[in-house]
Amino acid sequence: MSPSRPAAAPWTLHPHRALPAEPGVREIAVRIHEQTAPLPIVAMHGHVEASVFADDEPFADPAQLLIVPDHYVTRMMASQGIPLESLGVPRRDGGPVETDSRQIWRTFCENWHLYRGTPSRFWLEHELVEVFGVTEKPSSESADRIYDQIAAAVARPEFRPRALLDSFGIEIISTTDPASSDLSVHARLAADGLGSRVVPTFRPDGVLQLERSTWREEIATLAEVSGIDTDTYAGFLEALRERRRAFVAAGARATDHGHLSADTHPMDEAEAAALYARVLAGAEPTAAEAQAFAAHMLLQMAGMSCEDGLVMQIHPGVLRDHQSEILARHGQDKGYDIPVATEYTRALRPMLERHGLDPRFRCILFTVDETVFSRELAPLAGAYPSVRLGAPWWFLDSPDGMRRFRETATETAGFANMSGFVDDTRAYASIPARHDLARRIDAGYLARLVAEHRLEEDEAIETAIDLAYRLPLASYPEPVTDRATA
Amino acid sequence: MSPSRPAAAPWTLHPHRALPAEPGVREIAVRIHEQTAPLPIVAMHGHVEASVFADDEPFADPAQLLIVPDHYVTRMMASQGIPLESLGVPRRDGGPVETDSRQIWRTFCENWHLYRGTPSRFWLEHELVEVFGVTEKPSSESADRIYDQIAAAVARPEFRPRALLDSFGIEIISTTDPASSDLSVHARLAADGLGSRVVPTFRPDGVLQLERSTWREEIATLAEVSGIDTDTYAGFLEALRERRRAFVAAGARATDHGHLSADTHPMDEAEAAALYARVLAGAEPTAAEAQAFAAHMLLQMAGMSCEDGLVMQIHPGVLRDHQSEILARHGQDKGYDIPVATEYTRALRPMLERHGLDPRFRCILFTVDETVFSRELAPLAGAYPSVRLGAPWWFLDSPDGMRRFRETATETAGFANMSGFVDDTRAYASIPARHDLARRIDAGYLARLVAEHRLEEDEAIETAIDLAYRLPLASYPEPVTDRATA
Amino acid sequence: MSPSRPAAAPWTLHPHRALPAEPGVREIAVRIHEQTAPLPIVAMHGHVEASVFADDEPFADPAQLLIVPDHYVTRMMASQGIPLESLGVPRRDGGPVETDSRQIWRTFCENWHLYRGTPSRFWLEHELVEVFGVTEKPSSESADRIYDQIAAAVARPEFRPRALLDSFGIEIISTTDPASSDLSVHARLAADGLGSRVVPTFRPDGVLQLERSTWREEIATLAEVSGIDTDTYAGFLEALRERRRAFVAAGARATDHGHLSADTHPMDEAEAAALYARVLAGAEPTAAEAQAFAAHMLLQMAGMSCEDGLVMQIHPGVLRDHQSEILARHGQDKGYDIPVATEYTRALRPMLERHGLDPRFRCILFTVDETVFSRELAPLAGAYPSVRLGAPWWFLDSPDGMRRFRETATETAGFANMSGFVDDTRAYASIPARHDLARRIDAGYLARLVAEHRLEEDEAIETAIDLAYRLPLASYPEPVTDRATA
Repeated sequence: MSPSRPAAAPWTLHPHRALPAEPGVREIAVRIHEQTAPLPIVAMHGHVEASVFADDEPFADPAQLLIVPDHYVTRMMASQGIPLESLGVPRRDGGPVETDSRQIWRTFCENWHLYRGTPSRFWLEHELVEVFGVTEKPSSESADRIYDQIAAAVARPEFRPRALLDSFGIEIISTTDPASSDLSVHARLAADGLGSRVVPTFRPDGVLQLERSTWREEIATLAEVSGIDTDTYAGFLEALRERRRAFVAAGARATDHGHLSADTHPMDEAEAAALYARVLAGAEPTAAEAQAFAAHMLLQMAGMSCEDGLVMQIHPGVLRDHQSEILARHGQDKGYDIPVATEYTRALRPMLERHGLDPRFRCILFTVDETVFSRELAPLAGAYPSVRLGAPWWFLDSPDGMRRFRETATETAGFANMSGFVDDTRAYASIPARHDLARRIDAGYLARLVAEHRLEEDEAIETAIDLAYRLPLASYPEPVTDRATA
Repeated sequence: MSPSRPAAAPWTLHPHRALPAEPGVREIAVRIHEQTAPLPIVAMHGHVEASVFADDEPFADPAQLLIVPDHYVTRMMASQGIPLESLGVPRRDGGPVETDSRQIWRTFCENWHLYRGTPSRFWLEHELVEVFGVTEKPSSESADRIYDQIAAAVARPEFRPRALLDSFGIEIISTTDPASSDLSVHARLAADGLGSRVVPTFRPDGVLQLERSTWREEIATLAEVSGIDTDTYAGFLEALRERRRAFVAAGARATDHGHLSADTHPMDEAEAAALYARVLAGAEPTAAEAQAFAAHMLLQMAGMSCEDGLVMQIHPGVLRDHQSEILARHGQDKGYDIPVATEYTRALRPMLERHGLDPRFRCILFTVDETVFSRELAPLAGAYPSVRLGAPWWFLDSPDGMRRFRETATETAGFANMSGFVDDTRAYASIPARHDLARRIDAGYLARLVAEHRLEEDEAIETAIDLAYRLPLASYPEPVTDRATA
Repeated sequence: MSPSRPAAAPWTLHPHRALPAEPGVREIAVRIHEQTAPLPIVAMHGHVEASVFADDEPFADPAQLLIVPDHYVTRMMASQGIPLESLGVPRRDGGPVETDSRQIWRTFCENWHLYRGTPSRFWLEHELVEVFGVTEKPSSESADRIYDQIAAAVARPEFRPRALLDSFGIEIISTTDPASSDLSVHARLAADGLGSRVVPTFRPDGVLQLERSTWREEIATLAEVSGIDTDTYAGFLEALRERRRAFVAAGARATDHGHLSADTHPMDEAEAAALYARVLAGAEPTAAEAQAFAAHMLLQMAGMSCEDGLVMQIHPGVLRDHQSEILARHGQDKGYDIPVATEYTRALRPMLERHGLDPRFRCILFTVDETVFSRELAPLAGAYPSVRLGAPWWFLDSPDGMRRFRETATETAGFANMSGFVDDTRAYASIPARHDLARRIDAGYLARLVAEHRLEEDEAIETAIDLAYRLPLASYPEPVTDRATA
């Protein structure tokens, strides 16, 4: 409950952190990790804005870089009664929030103990020590000195976003872009020679989810950007096809779908068209109608993936904006998105009946409901050639969460049916930390298999390299017609 | 299948029992446990009867103390075909049951092997060796000697309930009392100077669950005790408010709610009032009506907690009395309560939309469905300032169950959003054993974090003390208006 | 992604494989495993065809023995885009599939790396090295040599099915036989003196599941075989009773039920009779009707088990034939059976209300939804004298799956309420490997309890022998009227 005492010696991170405690297993894990630690980062699912790379502006200050935009960090303080306002999280009504970044930083440092046992602690430590060279632990006493050190760093050219791509070792990174994006930022990136290093991802949630207050607006933008009339359902589908082509042309390798449910049951085409027209004309869809349309459209997206080769990522099961007051005051993505139990076996069956054996199709499945790893996702990935099992996502992207994922999914799915590590963050500076943590956990898991004589050490090293580097590249190939043997 | 051989040397418990096997981790765990082992016990959720402390009578005999009232112990023998009757469990019809406590004790000792691998084994060992000084393992051969030893002990003054409060190191213990209790037993305790050491807990299940056969009777008692006419729904609410005030005055810090579901969706107030009146007049509620009313009343209880500051404990998800014949013959709480899958994210949303950000509100969530730790409860506790995550409950209050709880909940919820250890027992003599086991498991978990360089040892010790002592005290504060910063 | 390098030294299996890595725990585990390794195999749930033993023909070749019929093995290659046709899996339309067993074997050996981390890897290694004496790892380079070695072995008399019964140490093995079986193959076995070593299991799914396309045909066969008119529901029940008696006479000890749900709610008897008549007359049952009838009949089966003493095995929760094209092309059991979440507490209540305390009744519960171990199955097995908890099944019959089962079920159920190890395979040569793996995992789990001072070593050894040998024998006794104390 009280903050930890300031460290006497300079703060360093143990080279064997997050590796298994048992000395024999750790020794093997160290050898495995030595092989994966230097590998480039393949970041095929991310939420850093493309403009960060296109503008290449310096980051504002430590709080604006590490605290304010990271809802993992702010929600933990909010959960202890510290208002989001005092952490500088903007209000939608423009109401007053803390604007003194140094003060926000102090609040964070005073509450450093709240992160004990969390992955945020691991990521933040890595960022402070490895990225910014901080040598003392955060505390009310050290807060100002650390602030000054980071503030000085981010002002230097080597801490600009593009320079960090190199120092972080990022070979390729994808952004997330709405279906209605004109991709102009990616065009600027391409003009600067970064077109194949920073690639877009097609995220059509905004036009597939009828219940959103912004749906009609998004449909209008879609028409404008695509140049295709979206007044009818047929036009809507054609506009989606056009945008997907544009995304492919801009370097996209995947789509991403964040529906509440994984349902892919089709509607009757005429009913879908009628519902589309009715809602476009101003009617409010019922919850059941919106859900049915979303499911129907997920199936359409799978069909289009067979046509254009974009890998389909499905991230279901999060009830967004559980607290309306937070949503009204601060907007989305503020830490109040809560998972729900999510069914995949029946939900995905229509899609897998239709496209599951199609060599042109690939989908990667994610979950925040870890009960489905052994029960549903590993059996699906271990049977369907089109299905790969994504990395543990969001709340599960943690040391013990990732370990449980390996333990519950590998035995049925096998390694080759997994996507390898995929981070999922809008916190740019945390990307190396996240990949490093994943590589450490995989090294530990594989080392245990070796120590238990379930795997040879050369196989474990090969598998670790697969998971860290080769599988993410192979799982998100450049669009081709037939990826059965990719 | 056969009982274990009698031990040659005197039976002692290993000082490092239930600590991790790996020597390096164990060494750290021992150091952590040394700091928490001597801490007082805060037992803020319990089912020992208040009269046990008010009357302070000696316990009858070993079987009546340790076997007959402990459904963990009797159900295990029943599951192997030993009738509850032969274990002395009373019949509601007054039919014959074993009355020879020595014979019951022999049956238990002969079946000692059934408890291998269970937490009952750990608790019973602790009680026998640490509380009663037994030096040989239970077996048919040793049964009589052990019986005599314990029988002699419980006859001595230092084994009376109040004396045990001191020797057990219990700083505060709460009982569980129906809403209609007149709290006269607690008044006697207060008169004896124990008013702030043995405190009541407000448990209104009996008046909130319309489907109970005793509901009308409970409502009548509620009117009588509160002095408020409960003929109408408005009077019912007012009587509840009055009883809550009386409980606060008697030292209560919390309410407790054992609904089948965690649902908190409100009914229309007029409909709730009409349903109340209709059932009070003799109508049978449908299952859906009873469920809707229970959900509605859970939300009302949350509102009242904002008013009077009582911490709200929610313990859902147990299908009580799965076997009607056992219920008819022996009554409730006989080991035939079986968990069901329990949803929290949607169920609690109405309550958390209304009161979740209210600094006056605190609720502590429990579950016997461990799949919700990582999926629902940790994300809720890690975001809402009003929500704390309770200790692993009932079947999960076991060495491996507690370890899994730490591993699945901590990374998302953080330690500060947890209630710390809360036992939940009617077996008084097992309370020190339960707290000891929890402290050992926490020491082992924290030691692993230290050994994996995910936490410093000084932080681990501080956290262990939080979980064992400071957090339970802070999680159940004396009622105040604003506990946001508690 | 690439195959592993060929081993320089002869390939041997480590004697401590699948035991815990921590040296202190492993040392104990080795001592425990030494006691269980030599025990006979009790294989009370299996899918090897009775004709394998009755005919006692040599196995055809390595691919036909180890690859083609093992859907664990073929689905893993199929999941990486290798068509089942090229693995020799027959087509129902007689279309072309690979017939060159050597070529199938090569494909398998080239893809050996796909099995890393899977239980198939462990089983196959055991079969290759321990059963067939192979001394080099599978690879494209070694494929032909290994093929020749196994081909030569299976041609020898000591590798015939009956001889393997002895060399595998199989004391008793059960087959799975439809209700409409005339048991003539078992009669041949009895004539050869194998009647009590190879016993049938009564599997009536085909006549209890109205929605099956073959249902009417099965009902007709049932009438023919039983000599009882099945035109009415009453006759149907009588025919079932007759077949169960015939199975008992042929040595059966158990029934087996693979329904989608565990539901046992009864229908009104007259409604059940009317539905039976209607569907028999050609009507298509709705999904709800078929489900209701299956539940009703499961309850009837429990009642008949009380009469005739057959142990009732329930294996629910698998959605069979998820992919219709695979079903149409290759038939059932091809790796496309995917689990679904499965409820037991409410589903089994009607059965356990009616028969749960009956000393003549025993049911053994299995699941592929591991979330129910701690939540539902262990509490049920730990209370009802009639209920035993089966071994981890199918996808969960893996090193980490079995370990999780012990960790999540034991603390509440206790060891004595478990069935002990039950394999569930149609891959005959894998049976010793499966039992060996289970004994290793149990040794490791028990060794951890010993190392954590939660169990004495002599108790652990006794328990390991129970789980490996005594409990499977005791869980499936020869039918008797009262098995309460079995």
